[in-house]
Amino acid sequence: MQPTQRRLANAIRALAMDAVEKANSGHPGMPMGMADAATALFTRHLKFDPSDPKWPDRDRFVLSAGHGSMLIYALLHLTGYARPTIDDIMKFRQLDSPCAGHPESFMLAGIETTTGPLGQGFAAAVGMAIAERHLNALYGDDLVDHRTFVIAGDGDLMEGVNHEATGLAGHLKLGRLIVLWDDNRITIDGSTELSRNEDVVARYEAMGWHTVECDGLDSGKVSQAIDKAVADARPSLIRCKTIIGYGAPGKQGTAATHGSALGAEEVAAARKELGWTDEPFVIPDDVAKGWKNLGSRGSNARAEWHRRVEASPKGKEYLARIEGKCDDSWLKPHVDGLIAKPQAVATRKASELALDAINAALPATIGGSADLTPSNNTLTKNIAVLDAGNYGGRYIHYGIREFGMAGAMNGMAQHGGVIPYGGTFMVFSDYSRPAIRLGALQKAKVIHVMTHDSIGLGEDGPTHQPVEHLQALRAIPQLTVYRPADAVETAECWAAALADDGPSLLALSRQNVRALRTKAEKSNLSAKGAYRLKGAEAARKVIIIATGTEVELAIDVAAALEEKGIGADVVSMPSTDRFDEQDDAYREDILPDVSNRDILRVSIEAGITRGWERYTGLHGLKIGLDRFGASAPAPDLYKFFGLTIEAIVPKILEKLGK
Amino acid sequence: MQPTQRRLANAIRALAMDAVEKANSGHPGMPMGMADAATALFTRHLKFDPSDPKWPDRDRFVLSAGHGSMLIYALLHLTGYARPTIDDIMKFRQLDSPCAGHPESFMLAGIETTTGPLGQGFAAAVGMAIAERHLNALYGDDLVDHRTFVIAGDGDLMEGVNHEATGLAGHLKLGRLIVLWDDNRITIDGSTELSRNEDVVARYEAMGWHTVECDGLDSGKVSQAIDKAVADARPSLIRCKTIIGYGAPGKQGTAATHGSALGAEEVAAARKELGWTDEPFVIPDDVAKGWKNLGSRGSNARAEWHRRVEASPKGKEYLARIEGKCDDSWLKPHVDGLIAKPQAVATRKASELALDAINAALPATIGGSADLTPSNNTLTKNIAVLDAGNYGGRYIHYGIREFGMAGAMNGMAQHGGVIPYGGTFMVFSDYSRPAIRLGALQKAKVIHVMTHDSIGLGEDGPTHQPVEHLQALRAIPQLTVYRPADAVETAECWAAALADDGPSLLALSRQNVRALRTKAEKSNLSAKGAYRLKGAEAARKVIIIATGTEVELAIDVAAALEEKGIGADVVSMPSTDRFDEQDDAYREDILPDVSNRDILRVSIEAGITRGWERYTGLHGLKIGLDRFGASAPAPDLYKFFGLTIEAIVPKILEKLGK
Repeated sequence: MQPTQRRLANAIRALAMDAVEKANSGHPGMPMGMADAATALFTRHLKFDPSDPKWPDRDRFVLSAGHGSMLIYALLHLTGYARPTIDDIMKFRQLDSPCAGHPESFMLAGIETTTGPLGQGFAAAVGMAIAERHLNALYGDDLVDHRTFVIAGDGDLMEGVNHEATGLAGHLKLGRLIVLWDDNRITIDGSTELSRNEDVVARYEAMGWHTVECDGLDSGKVSQAIDKAVADARPSLIRCKTIIGYGAPGKQGTAATHGSALGAEEVAAARKELGWTDEPFVIPDDVAKGWKNLGSRGSNARAEWHRRVEASPKGKEYLARIEGKCDDSWLKPHVDGLIAKPQAVATRKASELALDAINAALPATIGGSADLTPSNNTLTKNIAVLDAGNYGGRYIHYGIREFGMAGAMNGMAQHGGVIPYGGTFMVFSDYSRPAIRLGALQKAKVIHVMTHDSIGLGEDGPTHQPVEHLQALRAIPQLTVYRPADAVETAECWAAALADDGPSLLALSRQNVRALRTKAEKSNLSAKGAYRLKGAEAARKVIIIATGTEVELAIDVAAALEEKGIGADVVSMPSTDRFDEQDDAYREDILPDVSNRDILRVSIEAGITRGWERYTGLHGLKIGLDRFGASAPAPDLYKFFGLTIEAIVPKILEKLGK
Repeated sequence: MQPTQRRLANAIRALAMDAVEKANSGHPGMPMGMADAATALFTRHLKFDPSDPKWPDRDRFVLSAGHGSMLIYALLHLTGYARPTIDDIMKFRQLDSPCAGHPESFMLAGIETTTGPLGQGFAAAVGMAIAERHLNALYGDDLVDHRTFVIAGDGDLMEGVNHEATGLAGHLKLGRLIVLWDDNRITIDGSTELSRNEDVVARYEAMGWHTVECDGLDSGKVSQAIDKAVADARPSLIRCKTIIGYGAPGKQGTAATHGSALGAEEVAAARKELGWTDEPFVIPDDVAKGWKNLGSRGSNARAEWHRRVEASPKGKEYLARIEGKCDDSWLKPHVDGLIAKPQAVATRKASELALDAINAALPATIGGSADLTPSNNTLTKNIAVLDAGNYGGRYIHYGIREFGMAGAMNGMAQHGGVIPYGGTFMVFSDYSRPAIRLGALQKAKVIHVMTHDSIGLGEDGPTHQPVEHLQALRAIPQLTVYRPADAVETAECWAAALADDGPSLLALSRQNVRALRTKAEKSNLSAKGAYRLKGAEAARKVIIIATGTEVELAIDVAAALEEKGIGADVVSMPSTDRFDEQDDAYREDILPDVSNRDILRVSIEAGITRGWERYTGLHGLKIGLDRFGASAPAPDLYKFFGLTIEAIVPKILEKLGK
């Protein structure tokens, strides 16, 4: 006989409290409170097959309240995924277990996106739902027809990014997005009344969402609510009224169950309360079999889907699309064109020129901007707008929602089948930074297009002028930052970004730059991170390292030095990250041992100099500005901050003792 | 005869379009659309006196849509502030003018807070309204009785931080906060319909706000709406229906007026449309006099307020409070206590111990946390909760709203009379980073308490473990970052932060540390940024530089080296920012010239090593982790990442060639 839904749910509760108890660390309250709702979802609604976690037409499930990671570990284990095993769960939160403190997409199949930083799972789910509708528009119901389900907590709903993600989902009418809100009225500090008095449901309705309420501890009621959500054309919020830590008789309903082990005594009391007589980590046969049966209910659907793919004329194309390979055949003709007819344009404009070619060659790209389309130059003529009336479009007006955009792009990339890029001003990378980081952790293939990348944006002044951002972004592991110097480098950086598995960020100028790369090359020089753009003519005394818009200045400074008989290399360094990955021989060739005090290394970048010691050494010269910018036309600012030939050459001469 | 409100408003329109035209850069659309509403506010409601811009009981006005900076410049000029002069306005957006592209609080009296990064003016206004109610609770209506008005655009309302700020204001029932929403249905990309379908008014009502709608082009109607807002006990949103660029007949109502000069032809047409016959930058006498008269209408109220202050027994105390001087008499007895009875505690706990003393000594502090109170250790026993029922409390449960918290703290600091500090996990400094930056730009005296500052937080894993954050935060100009090593350093860093004029950030550990500072010192050693905690015993061959929790490891490594006859200094560097500010002699004493290859410099910090070349030189040794962390107990992680005596000593020996 099939165990009751409650008994199935109690297996989640038992695993959650036992794993947290053994680790003496973790969050039992949420899995125990949402066990019934999750059971309803996983046994009756969610379309998945544990034997093929990457089945493209599976429903996506996002545990936005990632601290409740034991909920998803229990579900994956019980429904029959190969991992986590019960041993993995017994090693919850230990170095050799894939059951990390928060669910990590790169550690377990079945974790669609890494969560924990609140609000971001929700935003990623919006991106997944966008990708689904987009691919559905292109490939039809036979190939693409799935939903995105989210479990979210009060934290997810209070974070600012929730407003952005909710607004985007409402605007795009993402009816296949269904959020189960764990309404337990408890946060870490205590009652939600300590910090919130909003009417959450009314807010969601104001945002264009469908809402429905249910007893979250009754899986039948949750199931009915999900049915209503599925039937509605709008994105849905299901308010599941729950009790945090449900089943732990002495602590349930309190913040004490949120982030700590319950303690042996309370766990014993909970076992009694739940009628759970088995030892820790032992799942009784009836429950184990019941879960496995229900876990395998998607296998027929998957088999049918495979048959449809085989039968479909678009099937192969779709599978290749999901595979995600990037063609770079656009690059050579594009660069050849730039060399035949050099373009002295801003690198944001050069990016648009590259995107013209990229969007024509790569149908998987989906562009967008956080309401700076005419400034970011992200919309090319050959793509249409993606909106509720045309999911097949390839350009999203994300609105003034930088963080929501970046979070959604992570989810789009993780859904697969699309390559998202999105623009804002580089100074506002601070707004999207939490999502840039979370994407980097997961190697989500997203391209962040950040224009207006220095004081060179001019009059908008210090609030809009990034000065510390390049260095702060380079600090993020697994993110590759590019700052190209001209149109050719911009194309090369785009190609390198598209070839990469992880996220990239392009820092692009508002102001025009000269065409510096005027000869065809055999390889993508920018992909090396740095290269010698100009070798010393006289005996080499100086190596000038510059990035982006300052490379043309470096060329001019070098020319002035050569006139005085001082040989100067110019190294263009579009990506410090990439350069650092090159082998010793290459790096030594470009930047010979700094202990050779005969050669002065000089860095020029219109940003903070802090950190450039990595390339100049402590006795080098760092040109930049270690302060906020100012409001004035760009040429005035470059002069004011000493970023001119006239200001730099004397500094170099002084350092050389001349 | 007093000119009509429309004629007064047209002076704003004329100055805005003329200044943008002359600069050939700027945003005329917003000032032209909101000129009538602003005229209503400034001539009939706002309490201010241009002859004393810092009058403590003035109403605060925040132009959250800061790109419309010409609106506030025009208002300040017309109402009679000493600056900007008409010359200043003619030099709009030039280096030698205080009329920057976006309004800068440090360039003009009358600008209460710097705006431009959207949503943040709104959040700062919430903080100002909190500070007002708090001080009112302490000092009464006679001394503190003012409102906070905001002009916000669609961008301000779409940004995620809006949700956090709105939620906070609704929860705290800040009835003295009144927001005029410039509902012009246009963003940079075009119609708001491109990206938004929410019912804004319904959302605000769901958040506990009062709302009212009016014709924003009719100053009489706006004035009536403001009266209704003033009468309501809730925070108010006034929906002002406007037309962007109103008065420019060929471009009004379109995105073309948002961020570019209108062009000579359109300006001429607008002059005609508005009946404005004067030359650019000429304000006709009737209008100039009309504005000046209305601008001075607050002078009596100010004089009365001064009389009340003089008559009040609390008057002097209040003025001193507004002055903002910080007493540090708490420090010595507190440190003496720690030395008498050393505390081997986490630095977050040491911070709580310091705060016990600080909150007792400094009544101006207002603490809080973004729902991590028990983890951040920010609530001390001697202060009560500040909420709608007790504005006199000194602790705010900010909810899961890191950005909103930081933005509100900026506004609290800028209001004056309070010193805000607020906590979250350090990894979530990414969420509040835009406000940390904007506060740094303005030197807002805010103390960001960031606990769980490394992989040392253990099991929560890489989403919660800051690795790049210390370096990324140190990159922000005018922000002082501290990472103390033990309880005494923590107290010293708090004292240094409180003595500073600008913002500070404390990076504090989850895990316990030994007491390292066990002797009384004459001065605050941490305030120097770095100091020699232990001098070499054998001949000095190594200088180990470490921060925070890694200082005790450095001490142990040094001891192991000394055992081998290798002399090693240990330099504790709680603040690289502070150390960089010391004179050459001090820095040279602590870190002798790195070209002396006889001394190896070693850095140890449980974060990225990138950037430590600044102190180790290129031939030094940098110990840390240049990757994301992992989920496991902290000691396992320290071992895994090589942050142990056993891993580090051999590396140093190898580098020394031993």
